[in-house]
Amino acid sequence: MAGNSFGTVFRITTFGESHGRAVGVVVDGCPAGVPLDERVIQTELDRRRPGHGAGAAGTTRSENDEAKILSGVVEGVTTGTPIAIHIENTAHRSSDYDNIKDSFRPGHADFTYTQKYGFRDHRGGGRASARETAGRVAGGAVAKAFLEKRLAKTYKVFAFTRRAAGVSCASVDYSVIEKNPLRAADLDAAKQMEEKLRALREKGDSAGGIVECVVRGCPAGLGEPVFDKLDAELAKAMLSLGAVKGIEFGSGFASAESTGSALNDPMRAANGGGRAVEFISNNAGGVLGGISNGEEIIFRVAVKPTASILLEQHSVAKTQNGAFENSSLAVRGRHDVCICPRIVPVVEAMTHLVLADMILRGESART
Amino acid sequence: MAGNSFGTVFRITTFGESHGRAVGVVVDGCPAGVPLDERVIQTELDRRRPGHGAGAAGTTRSENDEAKILSGVVEGVTTGTPIAIHIENTAHRSSDYDNIKDSFRPGHADFTYTQKYGFRDHRGGGRASARETAGRVAGGAVAKAFLEKRLAKTYKVFAFTRRAAGVSCASVDYSVIEKNPLRAADLDAAKQMEEKLRALREKGDSAGGIVECVVRGCPAGLGEPVFDKLDAELAKAMLSLGAVKGIEFGSGFASAESTGSALNDPMRAANGGGRAVEFISNNAGGVLGGISNGEEIIFRVAVKPTASILLEQHSVAKTQNGAFENSSLAVRGRHDVCICPRIVPVVEAMTHLVLADMILRGESART
Amino acid sequence: MAGNSFGTVFRITTFGESHGRAVGVVVDGCPAGVPLDERVIQTELDRRRPGHGAGAAGTTRSENDEAKILSGVVEGVTTGTPIAIHIENTAHRSSDYDNIKDSFRPGHADFTYTQKYGFRDHRGGGRASARETAGRVAGGAVAKAFLEKRLAKTYKVFAFTRRAAGVSCASVDYSVIEKNPLRAADLDAAKQMEEKLRALREKGDSAGGIVECVVRGCPAGLGEPVFDKLDAELAKAMLSLGAVKGIEFGSGFASAESTGSALNDPMRAANGGGRAVEFISNNAGGVLGGISNGEEIIFRVAVKPTASILLEQHSVAKTQNGAFENSSLAVRGRHDVCICPRIVPVVEAMTHLVLADMILRGESART
Amino acid sequence: MAGNSFGTVFRITTFGESHGRAVGVVVDGCPAGVPLDERVIQTELDRRRPGHGAGAAGTTRSENDEAKILSGVVEGVTTGTPIAIHIENTAHRSSDYDNIKDSFRPGHADFTYTQKYGFRDHRGGGRASARETAGRVAGGAVAKAFLEKRLAKTYKVFAFTRRAAGVSCASVDYSVIEKNPLRAADLDAAKQMEEKLRALREKGDSAGGIVECVVRGCPAGLGEPVFDKLDAELAKAMLSLGAVKGIEFGSGFASAESTGSALNDPMRAANGGGRAVEFISNNAGGVLGGISNGEEIIFRVAVKPTASILLEQHSVAKTQNGAFENSSLAVRGRHDVCICPRIVPVVEAMTHLVLADMILRGESART
Repeated sequence: MAGNSFGTVFRITTFGESHGRAVGVVVDGCPAGVPLDERVIQTELDRRRPGHGAGAAGTTRSENDEAKILSGVVEGVTTGTPIAIHIENTAHRSSDYDNIKDSFRPGHADFTYTQKYGFRDHRGGGRASARETAGRVAGGAVAKAFLEKRLAKTYKVFAFTRRAAGVSCASVDYSVIEKNPLRAADLDAAKQMEEKLRALREKGDSAGGIVECVVRGCPAGLGEPVFDKLDAELAKAMLSLGAVKGIEFGSGFASAESTGSALNDPMRAANGGGRAVEFISNNAGGVLGGISNGEEIIFRVAVKPTASILLEQHSVAKTQNGAFENSSLAVRGRHDVCICPRIVPVVEAMTHLVLADMILRGESART
Repeated sequence: MAGNSFGTVFRITTFGESHGRAVGVVVDGCPAGVPLDERVIQTELDRRRPGHGAGAAGTTRSENDEAKILSGVVEGVTTGTPIAIHIENTAHRSSDYDNIKDSFRPGHADFTYTQKYGFRDHRGGGRASARETAGRVAGGAVAKAFLEKRLAKTYKVFAFTRRAAGVSCASVDYSVIEKNPLRAADLDAAKQMEEKLRALREKGDSAGGIVECVVRGCPAGLGEPVFDKLDAELAKAMLSLGAVKGIEFGSGFASAESTGSALNDPMRAANGGGRAVEFISNNAGGVLGGISNGEEIIFRVAVKPTASILLEQHSVAKTQNGAFENSSLAVRGRHDVCICPRIVPVVEAMTHLVLADMILRGESART
Repeated sequence: MAGNSFGTVFRITTFGESHGRAVGVVVDGCPAGVPLDERVIQTELDRRRPGHGAGAAGTTRSENDEAKILSGVVEGVTTGTPIAIHIENTAHRSSDYDNIKDSFRPGHADFTYTQKYGFRDHRGGGRASARETAGRVAGGAVAKAFLEKRLAKTYKVFAFTRRAAGVSCASVDYSVIEKNPLRAADLDAAKQMEEKLRALREKGDSAGGIVECVVRGCPAGLGEPVFDKLDAELAKAMLSLGAVKGIEFGSGFASAESTGSALNDPMRAANGGGRAVEFISNNAGGVLGGISNGEEIIFRVAVKPTASILLEQHSVAKTQNGAFENSSLAVRGRHDVCICPRIVPVVEAMTHLVLADMILRGESART
Repeated sequence: MAGNSFGTVFRITTFGESHGRAVGVVVDGCPAGVPLDERVIQTELDRRRPGHGAGAAGTTRSENDEAKILSGVVEGVTTGTPIAIHIENTAHRSSDYDNIKDSFRPGHADFTYTQKYGFRDHRGGGRASARETAGRVAGGAVAKAFLEKRLAKTYKVFAFTRRAAGVSCASVDYSVIEKNPLRAADLDAAKQMEEKLRALREKGDSAGGIVECVVRGCPAGLGEPVFDKLDAELAKAMLSLGAVKGIEFGSGFASAESTGSALNDPMRAANGGGRAVEFISNNAGGVLGGISNGEEIIFRVAVKPTASILLEQHSVAKTQNGAFENSSLAVRGRHDVCICPRIVPVVEAMTHLVLADMILRGESART
């Protein structure tokens, strides 16, 4: 049983591989009556393009993605029927990948796909390519449109590069995120990150980092115990991204070092603002018992260094008789030195998707 | 849409709350022909009892859980029909919880359940109680029996307390895990942990820690891209545990500090052992592109300090007119100072469940 | 992937076989706040007992089913957590079935279960026994309680034996259904059916019939195109009953003989009653384009004659070397001559389950 | 929770409405290694075109559907990743439907869609149009390719018009089905059907009929008790087609008239042919206890007369102030007089989809 659908009530199914005709998504379960414009989807897609950040982190390869809504929207409003969105693949050159046809790139899924399917689409990583996330981003844009309608403009998701190449944001200013190629929340840190990344690029190497995500305006009560808890679904969503190796909520791994008296978030009666109760601290990251508590939802994901590096690496290759022999391999082409800035819009998209699903799922909690 | 089922092909549905008549599980999708004995389930259940570790970490409350298989097994073998397992609740005293009926314990789900369901079962936390995990452990024992049949005795899962109360295992010896109350993999570390925990208990406080899990004998090829990746499903499984605030695979958050040349695991042709290829390092933690690569699967979870502490905490209480007022609260009764040793068998159970599901799901990957 | 769950948002998982320890159901997704009493479930279970109708159709075997709610209900109200209901199996004698251990009863699932699972629980049919439906009926009682809360008392489901042993109800009076052993809606017809069935019983034979089901008070708008249409889900629900061989909605198979001008149901503006529009006829059986239209939902199911007959039948038996040889077989014990009256409460239960699920699923159709 | 996906392991999601940009399907769960050619999909699509049967039953509107595989197939073989198929909508004129914008066509889903979604796409029926089935047929072609690979060429599905406009096939010859515009299995009957339909067309009326489907070469053991039985899933699949009002398996509704001694299918040891056991009759229609028994699977569906007729019908229309008033309406354009021949390939497609899913689901029945 394959796994190309995500969500249950608000549900997407993505399709497409790096070098096929198109990638895309079908959204099933978006309620009727949501204003939806192709340009909104395009805006999000543009944010995930490799072109972003001509600076140190980015690549120069251009993907001129154009989103087309094929169904489910009439006169700018969703109709309750499936919304198919389609993005043609253009300008791919399969021949770039001829040299790796029979060898397995370290850090990539080449080996495991072959083990699983008895087969591997070597052209640009096939389905395991980051190109697959275009469908997620398009689906996430639909989820965002729904959430903005449902929760009004108080709803906001801010993802940003918290740390890259050993440099952390010292402060957090959401307004600068889109103003620097790293998508950091601190311009000074961004500059330092860029310098470190430039040095790594010159060596043909790459760097990892940490992306943080903050959700504002999410009501209390989202999450479906005991398995489909809000944090559990977010964790699944984030770990389904190829480069993510860990996630933590609120104080996260630091919780392990703490005590109950320091970590428990005390409560107090709230002074209006439509809320009866508020939490004095937010070590929980906005999720208690797997259900949102009305505070900001905060999590961080660990992003591994780009696997595609120009340096020579040990690997194996398939010989003509089907056996494996040791070999070495350097990945060609231009790749992101650090994936963090490009993963930011994907983290946001997956967050929108989880929250849209959880809001709709929660509608049946009470009679 | 509620969330009390886990898995798709090998699927469990758990039921029961702290102070109801019984807790339990229905396993649907266990293949016919798996030898299954009530005693095997009992053994796993006994491991999660609060009684474990009469020492510093444990409580003295006794839960005398007795598992009964109600269906799906004839003459000691599964029949392919649903396996219902039932564990009666005994010796619960609801009156212990009368003092918290109208107030919300910090660090607990009291507030969020009320927000979600318009209602809250205050007796022992209701469904949000750790007692709920008894059904998971019983289901996990069935999954384990299936995996041992399918993968033979090479399949092993070792979970243990890697760190607690600021003390880490300096070495790892799986054979000592069940020989110390902390379920640490290092007896010296265990002793230090105990001392620290004893001090915290005397103060009425609690501690967090890190549980590590290692899977041996898992074949390459498990995991269903692009959403139901092996690590994504394990992450969901672990974050669905109440006390878990984070997870990382292989090098995890340390990956964020590394470079591609240092982190990519190189490959080489294997010298027999039934494998054609092996990895020289295992920074990936056994999962590449969301699919197992045949190496050990390794992950760690962050466990927060026990929320129930004897110290006075700030909270709110519902007044007779339905409003909230500030109050303070100390949790009564005896609770684990550190949850790590008790969560170990639950981490193992959830791991078995994910792997059983992934093996069965993977059967349709190729024709 | 096994199939012991039904529904998606309001979802049941049943377990148990004829001669295991217990049968039962776990209901996940019933909203919090529904009044639920064990006696209500017991009442429905009592209706499906073989004891019903000491007359011609019934058997004399007594199943003294006692339903116990194990979880999910506190102080008589659902809490939003899983509702487990458990019915112990009592007084079963496995030895009754020793003579059929190695042979396959015609009309039963003995052969197909063996083919599927490589194994067969010969004791009373195992999971393929009608006993399995006890879990459905218990789950259906919960669904009914939810629907009565949600739709108020206008909601009613009437199932009855429309035809049995070649005799049809000439008129329909719902008030007599529970007053005759056939559960016919016409007392005169019921008497004639009884006579015919008595004659068949004396010969050791059995009869089929038709059960009709009418739903009143179901709002327009239920059903999820294009696959999970209301009639599609009801059809699945009914064909999942062992003895059902067909279903038709409204004019059903007679539609095939009709013309568009005769069959289309014209509409007119309604004179109040809270409805804006009504249909002048109801050939559609209350479902249009897979969505309820506010009229009565009407369907009929074809029930095959009881497969267990005392007459000698041709069959095959497994020999000691595993081969099959021709044999003949007469089923022992006392069985219903006609299953219709006993299937009536099960048809109602499945109808409640489909409607509860569809109401909850429909909540996300609009924003 | 919307319902535009069908199947669980072999799973399709369809999208598209009558007058949007495109219709199509995403197939998730087709195993890697199935030979798949765009022409095979095109062949099936061509069979459902309205152009089929320029004679009495057909319309003259031409839909020049062209199927494009966008993903999931490399060098003519499936890769295990999602297969997206896309069919552009061409030559639709929305203005044809301006006259029905505010009124509800009898026999159509116009009213119920409005009730459900608070909105209706009046252009050609929107998602409720028969055009939606193009995605099903494309998905069914993929399922068929998988089944032919898995079950070899012994696997065959024959659907045909058993009865239309009051005329039945007197004999059944599968080889003539594609040689007459009615897709009847008897050429003489086909001629009589045509004459009757011509007369109805002249009057502006339409006719219903019965489509029969026979599956050969399906192994015993398919179907997932107790809810996802083979006949239950086929029933759902067929009732999800807009014009289908009933289904029966094997002897179907005639079973209700029979006795156990006449209806039970006796068994005997088989004389080779790879089978150990065979059934002497097939009243069951190849399904016993919800599981295939190795005999031919046989079912029939009742098809209602085309709802779109040229005759004037009573209906209601929305006035400018949002109220409803009585009106009358005649549907414009050219429509099929009898839908049976066009539904034949869709019935086959849905059958392939159910069987592909059931074969893959069955793989986990035994260990």
